[in-house]
Parts: sequence; C-alpha cells; structure tokens
Amino acid sequence: MTYRAPINDILLSLNHGAGLAAAVEAGHYGDFDGDITAAVLEEAGKFASDVLAPLNRVGDEHGIKLDNGKVTTAPGWPDAYHRWTAAGWNAVSGPEAFGGQGLPLAVNAACTEIWSASNVAFGLCPLLTLSAIEALDAHGSAELKKTYLEKLVTGEWTGTMQLTEPNAGSDVGALRTRAERAPDGTYRIKGTKIFITYGEHDMTDNIVHFVLARLPDAPSGTKGISLFLVPKFLVNADGSLGERNDIHASGVEHKLGMHASPTCTMTMGDKGGAIGYLIGEENQGMRCMFTMMNQARLGVGLEGVGIADRAYQQALAYAQERRQGKAIGHKGDGMDPIIVHPDVKRMLMQMRSMTAAARTICYATAVALDVSVRARDAKVRAEAAARGALLTPIAKAFSTDIGNEVAYLGVQIHGGMGFIEETGAAQHYRDARITSIYEGTNGIQSIDLVTRKLGANGGASVWALLDELAAVIKQVETSNDPAFGTTGAKLRDAHAALERTSKWLLERLASAPNEALAGATPYLRLFAATLGGCMLAGEALAAKANGEAEPQRYVALARFFAENIAVQAPSLEKTVTESAEAVTGADAVLAG
Amino acid sequence: MTYRAPINDILLSLNHGAGLAAAVEAGHYGDFDGDITAAVLEEAGKFASDVLAPLNRVGDEHGIKLDNGKVTTAPGWPDAYHRWTAAGWNAVSGPEAFGGQGLPLAVNAACTEIWSASNVAFGLCPLLTLSAIEALDAHGSAELKKTYLEKLVTGEWTGTMQLTEPNAGSDVGALRTRAERAPDGTYRIKGTKIFITYGEHDMTDNIVHFVLARLPDAPSGTKGISLFLVPKFLVNADGSLGERNDIHASGVEHKLGMHASPTCTMTMGDKGGAIGYLIGEENQGMRCMFTMMNQARLGVGLEGVGIADRAYQQALAYAQERRQGKAIGHKGDGMDPIIVHPDVKRMLMQMRSMTAAARTICYATAVALDVSVRARDAKVRAEAAARGALLTPIAKAFSTDIGNEVAYLGVQIHGGMGFIEETGAAQHYRDARITSIYEGTNGIQSIDLVTRKLGANGGASVWALLDELAAVIKQVETSNDPAFGTTGAKLRDAHAALERTSKWLLERLASAPNEALAGATPYLRLFAATLGGCMLAGEALAAKANGEAEPQRYVALARFFAENIAVQAPSLEKTVTESAEAVTGADAVLAG
Repeated sequence: MTYRAPINDILLSLNHGAGLAAAVEAGHYGDFDGDITAAVLEEAGKFASDVLAPLNRVGDEHGIKLDNGKVTTAPGWPDAYHRWTAAGWNAVSGPEAFGGQGLPLAVNAACTEIWSASNVAFGLCPLLTLSAIEALDAHGSAELKKTYLEKLVTGEWTGTMQLTEPNAGSDVGALRTRAERAPDGTYRIKGTKIFITYGEHDMTDNIVHFVLARLPDAPSGTKGISLFLVPKFLVNADGSLGERNDIHASGVEHKLGMHASPTCTMTMGDKGGAIGYLIGEENQGMRCMFTMMNQARLGVGLEGVGIADRAYQQALAYAQERRQGKAIGHKGDGMDPIIVHPDVKRMLMQMRSMTAAARTICYATAVALDVSVRARDAKVRAEAAARGALLTPIAKAFSTDIGNEVAYLGVQIHGGMGFIEETGAAQHYRDARITSIYEGTNGIQSIDLVTRKLGANGGASVWALLDELAAVIKQVETSNDPAFGTTGAKLRDAHAALERTSKWLLERLASAPNEALAGATPYLRLFAATLGGCMLAGEALAAKANGEAEPQRYVALARFFAENIAVQAPSLEKTVTESAEAVTGADAVLAG
Repeated sequence: MTYRAPINDILLSLNHGAGLAAAVEAGHYGDFDGDITAAVLEEAGKFASDVLAPLNRVGDEHGIKLDNGKVTTAPGWPDAYHRWTAAGWNAVSGPEAFGGQGLPLAVNAACTEIWSASNVAFGLCPLLTLSAIEALDAHGSAELKKTYLEKLVTGEWTGTMQLTEPNAGSDVGALRTRAERAPDGTYRIKGTKIFITYGEHDMTDNIVHFVLARLPDAPSGTKGISLFLVPKFLVNADGSLGERNDIHASGVEHKLGMHASPTCTMTMGDKGGAIGYLIGEENQGMRCMFTMMNQARLGVGLEGVGIADRAYQQALAYAQERRQGKAIGHKGDGMDPIIVHPDVKRMLMQMRSMTAAARTICYATAVALDVSVRARDAKVRAEAAARGALLTPIAKAFSTDIGNEVAYLGVQIHGGMGFIEETGAAQHYRDARITSIYEGTNGIQSIDLVTRKLGANGGASVWALLDELAAVIKQVETSNDPAFGTTGAKLRDAHAALERTSKWLLERLASAPNEALAGATPYLRLFAATLGGCMLAGEALAAKANGEAEPQRYVALARFFAENIAVQAPSLEKTVTESAEAVTGADAVLAG
C-alpha cells in the first residue's frame, strides 16, 4: 500500500504542540506567513505518495551496485531525484541568497518526515546535503560559497559528511585522515573513511564531500581536527566541471536495511592526495561540526517518526482488512477484522501515540532552532537556542527508539505475513535499525542530555521547560473533560518524577559521575515520556479550543499515551536513582 | 565468534531456579540420576560449538533453494544433521520403547537452548519433529507408532506440523483442507497449507507430515478438525520406502530471517489426494494439537533464550575488544574498551539478566511438564500440570519478547558495525523476529494466560505460585546481604502488583471481558518480571548456600533484574488496570 501524509495531524502538531503558530504570532518568524504551511505540506505529501513511496520497495530489493568506483542506484531513483529537486524540495529551508526558499526549518522538518515516511533511504540523501549546506553557509569563505552553495541548495549537487574511520566512530577525536598544506593555499587529503552515506552515486553530476582530517602539526584529539571541502570533480572558474579529484568509493557495505542508500568506504590519496579546501579555520573542524549537528540529529529523529508513521499506516490497513476470530459478542458465522481485538487495538494505539509524541518533540526542536536564529530579541534567541540544544538529543533518541518499536509492532500485527519480505512490514523494521545508531548512537544522545544539556547550566533549561509542562498539566486538570481519564494524574506523576530525577542526576554529576552516566538512557526515556505526554495533551486542548474536526480523537490519543507510556515515569525514576550501583558494579558479572 | 554453552549458568538455573534438583530429590523423577545432566550438557555444548555454530552464518547467507519441488539446504547442513542424529541428540527425551533415551524434558530443554543459540534455524527442524512424536505417541494407533515412531524419535525422518492456511492462522478453526474417507480406512487429503517449517528438505529420506483437515461431514469451526499423518513417501510393510505421496512443496517464502529453514507452501491433491492416516479420532484433531502445544510453545520460548544468549556473548566479546573513548578518570593517551562505559554496562546487564530470567522460566515450565507425567502421586501430577499450563504462555511470550530485545541491544552495542550483515549481530536480530509470532503470537499467549490460565480455575494456579514467590522474597529480605541492594523491596512491590492485577483481571473477565483482554499483554510482562525476578533471586540464594564459585555474581545479576526490570511492575499494573478504556475506546482514533 502507498503512504498518505497525515496533513491534519502534522499541522496540529506543528502549529500547536510544537508552538509554531505562537512563535509566528509573537513575531519570531518575521514576515513568514504561517498560512502557506498547509499548502506546502499538501504538495509534499502528493509528491511523496506519487513518486517516492512506489520506489521504496524497488530500492530495497534492487539495492545499489558498485562497479569500478561507480555506484548505480535502483531503477527510477535518479529520475525521482531530478524531479524532486526540480520541484524545489531540496531548497525549502535553504538560504534565499543562494537559491533557497528561506522557509522555516520547522516546515522543512515536516517535509523531512514526509520524505522519510514515503522512502527513508531516498530522504537520507538530502539530509546529508542539508548538513553540508549548513557547514558551508556558516563557516565557508565567500569564494567557496559562490562556487558550491547554490548547487547544494538546489540539490544539483549532493553533499556528504565524512567523519567516521575504522578506529574513530563515537570517538571522532581518534581520526587519522591526514591533510597537508599545499603551496596554493589548498590542502592534499589522504586517508580512508567508512560508512559514508551516499559517498558515491549516479543521481547528480558532482558530489561535494565534507571531510574531517588532521594537519601534520595538529594537536591530538578533537582539538586537532579541521574540516575540508573535497569535491568529487574539481570546479573550473566558469563553474563547469573540471578534473576528477583523488577521492573514490572503494567499497560499499552489505547492510541490514537502507539497501537503496549507498554506504561507502571512501579512499583519498591514491594519486597523491585529494584536493581539499579548508572550511573555517585550521583545527576548528569540531566547532564547524557542532554547529550543524543539531539539525542533522533532528533529521535522523524525523526519519524515526517517518518510518513509524509508515509502519503504522500499513499495519492499520492490514488490521482493518485481515479477518481472524470473532469479537466478543459476535453472533453467527464469519470472522471479524482483527482490529476488533483489544490486543490489536492496543498495539495500534501504541504505534500511533508514540509516533505522534515523537513527531511533536521533533517539530518543537525545529521551532526552537528556528527561533534561535530568526527572533529579533537576543534573549529570545538565547533561550530558544538552549531549548533547541536540550530537545535535540531527546528528539533524536526517542524518535528513533520508537521508530524501531513501532516497526516491531507493525510486523507483529501482520502475524506470519510480517516475516515475509514481500509484505513490506519487515523493510521498515530493517530500515529503522540504523537510526538509533548513526549521527551519534542513542547512548551518546543520552549522555549528551545528562552531561551537556542538563549539567551544563545547572539544569536551568530543564526547569524552564518543566514550568511550561506544568501549565499544560494544569489545563488538562481544569478542563474537567472526563474523556481525558487519568491523563492529568499520570502527567503530574511523570512531571514530578522527571523533576526529582533531574535533581538527583545534577547532584551525582558532581559527586559520582559514573552513577549519573549509568542512568542516562532511562533518564532520556523518562524525559521523552513526560514531554511527549504533555505535548499530546496540549494538542488535544488546542484541538478542542480551535474547533478542530473531531477533537475528541486527540483527547483519546493523549489519554492513551499518558496511561500507557507516561505512566512508566515513576518506574524509570527508580531505575535511574536506585539502580546505578547495579550498573557500575556489573564488572564481576560480565567477567564471568 | 563462536558460541560457548554457559554450562554453569544453565545448571544453576535448571537445578535451583527451575527446581529440577528438588523434584528429583522428592522422587518425582523416578530413578533419573541428576548427576548425569552436567555431562549431557557438556557434550551438547561441544557439539554445538564445533558443528552447529559454524554453520549458522553459512545457512543465513546461502539460504535454501526450491527447484522442481525439491529443497536444497545450505552446504554442510545435511551432514551436520546426520551427525547430530547419529550422536543421539534427537532422542534425548524420546520414549524409550521407541529408541529414545527417556531423559527429562527439562534436560532436553537445556539442550534445545543450546541448539538454538548455536544455530536457531537448524534447531527449529527437530522442534517440529518433537511435536510430531508427541502427537503420535499420545494419540496414534499401535500400527502407526510401529511404522513411524522410532524413525521420528531417532531423527532418521523429520516431522512437520501443518495447521496454517491463508485464511486460517490464529483462527485455526477456519481451515479448509479436505479429507475424504477411502474404502481401505485411509483418507485422501486435498488442500494447501502455508508457512510449513521444513515442509521439504534434503536432510532425510522421508518426512512425516501431520496435517489438520476437515471431513466432508464435519461440524464447522474447531470441532470439525481431524489430524492426519501424511508421509512424503509411503512406507511398505517391510519398513522400506514406497511410492511418493501426493504432497509437495509448491513454494518457499522469502523471509526476514531464519533463511536456512525452508518455509514451504504444501500442496496436496494434485493427483487425486494425498494418502493420510487418521491420528486419534475423527473431529478430535484440536484435542491432539492441544496435548502437544505446551511443549512446542516451550520450544519456541527456548529459541528466544538461545538467540538472546548468543547475541549477548557476541556483544560482550565486542565490548571487551572495541576501544572508543575513555573511562572517567582515565589519564593519558589511548582509548578504553567500550565495556568501561556505564551505558554499555547497562545494556550488557540488561541482556544477560533478561536472558537468565527467561531461561529459568522456560526450564521451570519443563520441570512442571515432566512432573505432570512422571510423579507417582496424582495430586502432584495435577498440580504440576496446572503449573506447566500456567507457565507455558509466559515462557513462550516473555522469552521471545526478550529474545528480540536482547538481539536489538546486541546490534546497538556493535554501533555502526551492527548494521553490517557480515558482523553477524543483525542475523540474530532478524532470526529472533519470528519467534514472537509463530506457535501462537505473543498476543495469543497473553490472552491464553488471562482467559484460560488465570481465569479457568478462579486464579488458583496463580495464587499457588504467588505463595512460593513470597517465600523467596522473604528469604532475600532475611538474608541481610547488602549486595542485594533493593532487590527485596522491588520484588515485594512487584509481587503485590501482580496479585492485585490478577484479582482485577478475574473480576473484569466476568464483568467486562474486553477490558481484561485489553490488559493481557502488559499483564504477561508484569507476571514475567515478577516471576523472573524472584527466580533469579532464588538462584542467587542457592548459589550462596551451595558454595557455588563466586556466588556474588548471581546476587548482582538478580539485583540488576529486580532494580531494572521487576521495578516496572507497578507501572504495568496501572497500565492493565487504568488504561483499559483508552484501549477499548480507541475506535474513533484509529478510524481517523
């Protein structure tokens, strides 16, 4: 079956759960007209359903082929990419000075969800290009921008991000790729990078690689890393393509999922060194990477949301159609669709509510990142930057965790058919698996949340957010809508658990950091369960207030999440605060 | 890396957690000498490491091929199967009158874990044969037993179980395969079965199919189903193979995992009808199936345990070897193995403790099934039968749920390498996925637990078990071993939650059955978290009491489980008892 973008859910989430409408109203988005969002998303949804969704299985089955350094993508893929860029989709949030439409990241975030839902392996390519654009726009010289930025913004050329080496994964500082200064001010890069997404392909004429490397006299660790732009083909002064640069794909990986996306080993320096151009300053490469990391991590979170929604749509359709057994009270012959069975309903509601919560967390991250650069008031910008920094690891890790969980349930609802590849449910399950690993594993995200985001400012960002969530909980409680069930109570318990746990972690960060780190993963889950629960409740309240069609649907969804997911908060609190010794003292068990 | 059977852990679990030693001591196992268990398992572990484990990836990569109705298994597989049966491994728990060794199911359960851990797609074949043996032994005529039983017990021939049809999966009663009476007392079977595991292969000369079908005058639904023995080759009076029967594999599935295990579409009746022999009485096929279901479900649970242990061993080895980052307080250059990081320790402990809990739940189920047929005292047998019936759905569903969760974490610990197929971590993840679906989905298991096992006898089986668990908790509390941390308190909370939730469900089963069904899945998890926690604590106490080497390792393991898994019990209680309306009222959300 195909994919249909859930435009109403997306708009409610974006405008109300994530706060886009309020930020526009407050003037933080300048002259952006929020009314166009719906039209943009409708068009994106149409393109996704018509062009990208049908290529999803083709890509999975066909995969890619590497022959003599050239990668061939699946049939129909280059054409789809050309149509996608021609329609302007790569340029949605790109800088207007370089051919972009300058729309909010938040709007592009919704688009990213839509591309990911329809065809995640396709959508991954422009995600990398967006990161490249961000790095170049923020740190590149005027000349480099002139030559490369517009091509990247339009998508005529794609970008790659080259960090990982066999001995430098989560520990980027260990990388060994060498850069030597050439007399003409350029650099010669030699080394090998692995796991390079879309490092080589046949969808565009040129590929612009962004490579982290180390100068001969660089300090060790992350302080000695520089960022270089390394084009596949050098670019002549008139903008035409020149010589082939000394960088090529020497291998591609055989992966569990994302078969259509080439994951390349890139070799530089077979012929003396790839020509590279410095981005920013020497030894400042990590700083350049950090500026773009928020958006890249958010992009991966949106992949999780997209895969989850696709898996949900497919499982829902199956559950409405497949007949087995009878509902309690069914008289007479025949079987009922399995959606009548409470256990199937539970699975579907779990899928839908977790997807909705992750969606709003991601969109709220995008709104914060937008406001952090768009708002006129410096204080508003600073607060938004802190909010964006806080939410980013949650958006990435929670959304990709639930992407996997939802895809798992999607297979389960299909029963035995779910295990058969032709059904398609298994592809979502396989594709989702990388999202909790790449762009910083979810363990790294949790540690980032605890040490840098909670710990860095004594918890100030967390307290500010908790205040806002408390206001939503109060609204739920005072709404007196019996359809909320125990939502208010569950969220209040979760809120209190999150506050206490945050304080406990802050104390331990100072006194016993390993104990704080031991609780990082359950803390992130506790955070997301509370945050997501409050956001869905806020959306339900907004749906009621705004006269949304059938607002009670959103109340029921928020209630399910509160009573099934947010309800785990007190247990998660105990896991963080009472099991640290069981973790740090694990050595004897693991040795035996 | 290869697999090593964790003999010490298995023996502690079997003898103490699962209660084999006490049952032997009480005389329930007749003259079985418990001392031989260790020797049997050592040999099984050796065979698994030397022969089966190396074929696991070969099987995954090569898969199977269907050509003209013939299935070719992966290179080395037929030879391994012959060596395995020649060594007597198929006959471990088979009836002695027919060439079996008559060892306890509990010992064979440990062996099944070992085969599944080393090579789950291989171990799946004899699991089906064991079910066939059970059906034939319990319900077959003397003549059928004489012809087929010994061949099945030795494994010279394999068995299949043929229930599923395109429109009859969880709802077996909907099957349409027809059986017509022939004048000679045999039957002619016509129809198509799907998802038939090892329905066709090249490892043995003959295959004995056990097929559910419907007579022309049969009542509708499950009351009109009969069980037939349908050999691939008919057997002559002298035991030699005769004509090819009218049953063949017309297709094989392309699956997410278990690539080496052929999953066949079986067609009967192209040439007038396959010759079938009735097992038991006409229209009593479901009764025959039910007698063997416990053991088959337990077998699948053990697949979950096996895959989990294999994934754990592989992840542990990787975490000890792979270096990234530094431990807190590490001075100087170089990186530490990732096992120093608390987040990695947590994942490994989660993997190990969940595996250990599932293992003991499975073994305890096997002990109960043993005692239910071996004990001399009828009351002891009846109580054991009730215990076995209660534990079976938990053993099946929890073990396969955690098999998937542990395999997920195994991939996660490998980082990017986990997504690369050559690493092998992804295979465990793919293979595990079917275990929570086949032999009754885990949703079906949960419903069985609530309606038939809890509900059938007013909760008597549950109260009896809760009493035993309370005694263990008391022992933990009175042990005054500070290494238990908050284990006693966590288990006490879990125990109380399980008791209250069981009562709530019993009440709702009568007053509002859909609300009880809505909580079935979280209830099973709550049950397993409590039961597994108490069992691991009991093992730790036994290890201390028996002078086990390093007993504190088992205390630490029990503590981790209590503080990280059993701690979820109070939240799961609320999910069951307070979210039923959110589930049963989901229709409006799911329709929109």
